[in-house]
Amino acid sequence: MPSAAIREQLAAFQGLKSDLFQKDFLLTWEHPEEQIRAILALAETFKQLHQDGYSYRAFDTGLAISIFRDNSTRTRFSFASAASALGLSLADLDEQKSQVAHGETVRETANMISFLTEVIGIRDDMFLGEGNSYMREVGDALTDGTAQGVLHRRPSIVNLQCDIDHPTQSLADLAWLKKHFGNLEQLKGKKLAMTWAYSPSYGKPLSVPQGIIGLMTRFGMNVSLAYPEGYGLIPDVIDVAKKNAAATGGSFEIVNSMEAAFADADIVYPKSWAPFEVMGRRTELLKKSDKDGLKALEKECLANNAKFTSWECDRPKMNLTKGGKALYMHCLPADITDVSCKAGEVRAEVFEQYRIPTYQEAAYKPFVISALMFLTRIKDPGAKLAAIVDRARSISL
Amino acid sequence: MPSAAIREQLAAFQGLKSDLFQKDFLLTWEHPEEQIRAILALAETFKQLHQDGYSYRAFDTGLAISIFRDNSTRTRFSFASAASALGLSLADLDEQKSQVAHGETVRETANMISFLTEVIGIRDDMFLGEGNSYMREVGDALTDGTAQGVLHRRPSIVNLQCDIDHPTQSLADLAWLKKHFGNLEQLKGKKLAMTWAYSPSYGKPLSVPQGIIGLMTRFGMNVSLAYPEGYGLIPDVIDVAKKNAAATGGSFEIVNSMEAAFADADIVYPKSWAPFEVMGRRTELLKKSDKDGLKALEKECLANNAKFTSWECDRPKMNLTKGGKALYMHCLPADITDVSCKAGEVRAEVFEQYRIPTYQEAAYKPFVISALMFLTRIKDPGAKLAAIVDRARSISL
Amino acid sequence: MPSAAIREQLAAFQGLKSDLFQKDFLLTWEHPEEQIRAILALAETFKQLHQDGYSYRAFDTGLAISIFRDNSTRTRFSFASAASALGLSLADLDEQKSQVAHGETVRETANMISFLTEVIGIRDDMFLGEGNSYMREVGDALTDGTAQGVLHRRPSIVNLQCDIDHPTQSLADLAWLKKHFGNLEQLKGKKLAMTWAYSPSYGKPLSVPQGIIGLMTRFGMNVSLAYPEGYGLIPDVIDVAKKNAAATGGSFEIVNSMEAAFADADIVYPKSWAPFEVMGRRTELLKKSDKDGLKALEKECLANNAKFTSWECDRPKMNLTKGGKALYMHCLPADITDVSCKAGEVRAEVFEQYRIPTYQEAAYKPFVISALMFLTRIKDPGAKLAAIVDRARSISL
Repeated sequence: MPSAAIREQLAAFQGLKSDLFQKDFLLTWEHPEEQIRAILALAETFKQLHQDGYSYRAFDTGLAISIFRDNSTRTRFSFASAASALGLSLADLDEQKSQVAHGETVRETANMISFLTEVIGIRDDMFLGEGNSYMREVGDALTDGTAQGVLHRRPSIVNLQCDIDHPTQSLADLAWLKKHFGNLEQLKGKKLAMTWAYSPSYGKPLSVPQGIIGLMTRFGMNVSLAYPEGYGLIPDVIDVAKKNAAATGGSFEIVNSMEAAFADADIVYPKSWAPFEVMGRRTELLKKSDKDGLKALEKECLANNAKFTSWECDRPKMNLTKGGKALYMHCLPADITDVSCKAGEVRAEVFEQYRIPTYQEAAYKPFVISALMFLTRIKDPGAKLAAIVDRARSISL
Repeated sequence: MPSAAIREQLAAFQGLKSDLFQKDFLLTWEHPEEQIRAILALAETFKQLHQDGYSYRAFDTGLAISIFRDNSTRTRFSFASAASALGLSLADLDEQKSQVAHGETVRETANMISFLTEVIGIRDDMFLGEGNSYMREVGDALTDGTAQGVLHRRPSIVNLQCDIDHPTQSLADLAWLKKHFGNLEQLKGKKLAMTWAYSPSYGKPLSVPQGIIGLMTRFGMNVSLAYPEGYGLIPDVIDVAKKNAAATGGSFEIVNSMEAAFADADIVYPKSWAPFEVMGRRTELLKKSDKDGLKALEKECLANNAKFTSWECDRPKMNLTKGGKALYMHCLPADITDVSCKAGEVRAEVFEQYRIPTYQEAAYKPFVISALMFLTRIKDPGAKLAAIVDRARSISL
Repeated sequence: MPSAAIREQLAAFQGLKSDLFQKDFLLTWEHPEEQIRAILALAETFKQLHQDGYSYRAFDTGLAISIFRDNSTRTRFSFASAASALGLSLADLDEQKSQVAHGETVRETANMISFLTEVIGIRDDMFLGEGNSYMREVGDALTDGTAQGVLHRRPSIVNLQCDIDHPTQSLADLAWLKKHFGNLEQLKGKKLAMTWAYSPSYGKPLSVPQGIIGLMTRFGMNVSLAYPEGYGLIPDVIDVAKKNAAATGGSFEIVNSMEAAFADADIVYPKSWAPFEVMGRRTELLKKSDKDGLKALEKECLANNAKFTSWECDRPKMNLTKGGKALYMHCLPADITDVSCKAGEVRAEVFEQYRIPTYQEAAYKPFVISALMFLTRIKDPGAKLAAIVDRARSISL
C-alpha cells in the first residue's frame, strides 16, 4: 500500500499543469514556473515510490538514447537509471563507432536512430555557441521526419548539459533546496552565492553557473554572482537572470569577490568555470584541431587562473555567511584542496562537512530525468501517475 | 482496440507458412518465396502496431547479442530497437574488450556467450570469402553445443551484413517497394536499375548490390545491373540472380553504363562498391596486416574509381527513367556531390528530392529485424502474433 | 506446468538457510557451508527453469552495474545474462569514459552510480593486495551512503574475480562437480588435483587456484595443490584451505609435481598462474607505470616459466589418475598446445576429450551469478522462488 506521503505527492502533482508532451527540454527558462513546479513534484513522487520499494515503470518497451560528447559518470548513470526505472532500454550512441557530425548527417542520423525511440538525452558542452544549437538541429530533424511520416512519433530531447544550461543539474539542485528548506516558498528572500572558484584545470563549461542563475532567480531568491574580472558568463543568460529576478521579487547582482557574495548568504555554490571569452577562442581552436593553439591557450588560461587561487571556499569565508552556516552546494566532482589537487575550489574541512548534503543534492538527478522523460512522453501524466500509484508494484515484482 | 488494418495484416501473416524456428537467417535465397512474404507481412504488422501505439513485446527476458566487426549506426540502432521492442536485452560483443578470433576460440566463445541468448546478430563484411563463413562457423558451434547439452536452446543468427548478402537491408528495401507500389504483385515487370556509382572512397562491400539482385529477381522484376569494367560481383550471386529471374518470369541483365540501366527504369539504386577482385586482394592484405600494401591498393583503386566520376546519378540520367520519375533508392549514407564529398554517387538536387523516401525505406529495417528475431525464436508465430494483437498493450504500459 | 524436478529443487532450496540479504559476496569462505548449498540449489533451480522454457524474472526495473578492470568475455556475458534473466538493466561502468580511481572518488562514485542500483559486479584482479580491498572500499562507501540517507537501499557487490578469490567461477565449478558426481555428498573423499601448468604468458591471476582450494576443501575432498618452486599462492588462503580440510574431514596437501597431484586423482584442474612474489612486484611496477620494469619482469618470468614446460596435462599424466579417467576441469580459455600456442597447459587430445565437459562447467556461471543477485536482493527468497515457480511464465511471454 502506497504511503500517505505518496498520495499527497500525487495530489500535488495533479494540481499542476504540465505542457511538455512530445516536446524537448533544453533550457529551464523556456518553460513557465508551474512547469518547473510540476517537474519537481513528479521527481519527488518518483523518489518516494523508489524509497518505498515501488516500481514506477511506465513503458513496456522502447529506446532511450544517450549521446555524450564529453565524459560523464553521474549524468550517464542518472540517465541509465531513469531509463531502467521507466522501462526503457538504454542505447548509447558512441560517435566513434558510428559517424555523426554536423550538417547533412545530423538530419539523417537523427531520424535513423529514432524509429522506435522515446527519448534522446544529449550532452554537448565543449563548444561555445554550438551545444544547444546542435540539440535544436537534432530536434528540427526529428520534427521534419515526423511531419514527413518517417517517424511514427517524434522522440523528445532532454538536455544533459550544453554550452548554455545544465537543466537536469539545476532542477536537481532546486529539488534539493526545496527539500532542505521545506518548500519552494521558503526560498523567497534567501540569498544564494553562485561564485567562481579556483581550479587547476581549465575549460570547465559555463552551463552550471548559468543554469543556477537562470533558475534560482525565478523563485524570489537573491542571487549574487561573483567572479574575477574576465570570467563573465554569456550576456544573454545574465539578462535572463535579471528579468527573472525583477519578475519574481528576488534580486540579481554581480560582485567581484567571493567574500562579497558569501556575506550573509543562505546558500553558497563555489564552482570553477572558464571565462566566456576563453571558451569562444577554445571553440575556434577545437574546430580547427589546432593542438598548439589549444596548448598555448591552456597555458595562458591556467596562468590567469593562478592569479585567483584565493577564490577558495574555506572556513573563514564560510564564516561570512548567515550565522556561518550557509548550505554548501556543488554539482560534483569538486576540486578539493589537498585531496583531489594541491589547491582547488574548496578546503577539505568544508567539503567534508557538506559531503553528504552534496550527495543528497545529486540524488535528485535520476528522478528529475525520469520526470522529464515521463512528462515529454506521456499524454496524460496525472492519470498515468495515479495508475502507477494505484498499481503499487514492487521493484522486485 | 487494434485497428482493422492490424487485423487484416495478422490474417495475411497467418496465411503464410514460416519455417524459421530455431534457424539462422543468412542469405535471402536460401529461403522460399513464401518465407520472404511471411517476413514482410510480419514486419508490416509490427510497424503498424508501433504506429498505433501498441507494444509487440514477445519476450519476458533474454539476450540479443550484436557483433559488429565494422562500424554501423543505422543497423546497430535497428538491431537495438528490435531487441527492445521484443523485450530482449541487448549485449554488444566488443571484440576489443574480449578475445574472439577464428578457429578454436570461435567454437568456444559462441557457446560461452549463448547460455541465455535468443539471437546473435553479426556484421562481418570486410573480408571477402570470410564474413558469411564466420557466421556459419558460429552457427555450427551453436548446433554442436546444443546437441551436446551445453546450451538449453540454440540461439539464432541473423546476418546483419556479410561479404555476400545484406538481407535485413534488401528485405527492408523490398518492404518499401511493396508499400510504394501497393503490393508485391505490382512489382512484376517493373525495371530496377542496380548500378555502380562513383565514390571517393574505396573498399565498400558488395553485399548491398548482391543482396538486391539476389532478392528482387524473385518477384518478377526486370533487374538491370550496371558497372564499369572490372567492378563485377561474386559470380555465384550473379548465377542466383539469373536463376531467380528465369524462375519467376522476370529478367536479369548486366550492362556497362548507368544510362543503359536507367533507361525506362521504374526504380534506380545507384551505389558504389569495390571491385570483387580488389576486395579479394584487400582481404589478403588485411589478413597479413600489410599496411603498405593496403595503402598502395587504395591508391590504385581510387585512381581507377576516378576514371568513372561520370557514374553519378544526376537529373539528366534520372530523365532517362520511366517518365523521368523512377523511384531513387539508397541504403544510406549516400555520397552526395558537394554535400558529403566533392564528387559522389548522387547529385544533391536528386538526393534531396528523394531524401524522405530513402528514410521511409530505412524505416522498415528495425521491423524486418524484429520479424527475423520473432520467427526464428517463436514456435507458433501465428498464434503468438494473434495473442499480441488481442492483448493490445500500449507501449507506455 | 513446472516439472516435478523443479518442484523438488524448490523444496531443496527452501530447506536451506540463506543470509545474504543486502550483503556482498566477496569470498566463499566468509559464508557458512549451508549458504554455499543454498546458492547451488538456487542456481540449479534457475537453470532448470530456463531449460524448461520458464522465465525467472524477479525485478520489474533496476540497474545491475558491471565494473571490469580487466578484459572478460565469459564472465561479462554471464553477468549480462543474469541481469537480463532477472529483469535488471545492465550498465557497464567504463572507467575510460568516466573517472574512477582510489581514494576520495571511490567513495563518491560508488554513491553516484547507485541511486537506483541493485547489484554491482566488480572484476579487479590485476593488482595483488588491492582488488578485494577495492571491493570493500566500494562497499564501505555504499554502507555509509545508505546510513546517511543518500541511498534508499544499499546495492550488493558481487565479486567477479579479485586478487584473492573468483567465487562465481569456483561456485560454478562446484555446481558442475555436484552434477557430475550426483550430489555434494559424493564429493567426500574424492581427490582433486589443483595444479600449476605451463603457459607462454605471464601475469595470470592467482584467484582461480585460490578459489578452488578455498572452496573444494569444504566438502570433504582431498585437495592436492601442485606447483613448481616459487609459484606459491597467498599464504592466508593456504591457511583457509588447511582449516577447511581439517574441519570437514577432507585433506589438503602441497606437492611439487603435476604427477604427484594427478596420482589417483578423481578430478584434475591444471591451470597456469603467476608466482605470488611476481604478482607483488608486478603490482608495484603497474602502480608506478614502469614500462621498462614490467618488460624486464615479464622477460624474467617467462624465462622462469620456460623451465617448467613439462608441466603440461598430457595423456601419460592423465593415465596416472584414478583409472586414467579423472574429470579434467578448466575455467577457460585454456592454453592448448599446438592449438592456441606452441606449448601450453594441456595437450589438444586431452582438451578435446573434455571440451564439452568444460563447457558444461562454464554453463553454471550465469545461474550462479543469478543466484547471488537474487539472494542478496530478495528479502524472502524462498517465498519469492515459490511465486516464480507457481507463476511459470514462459521466457517468450
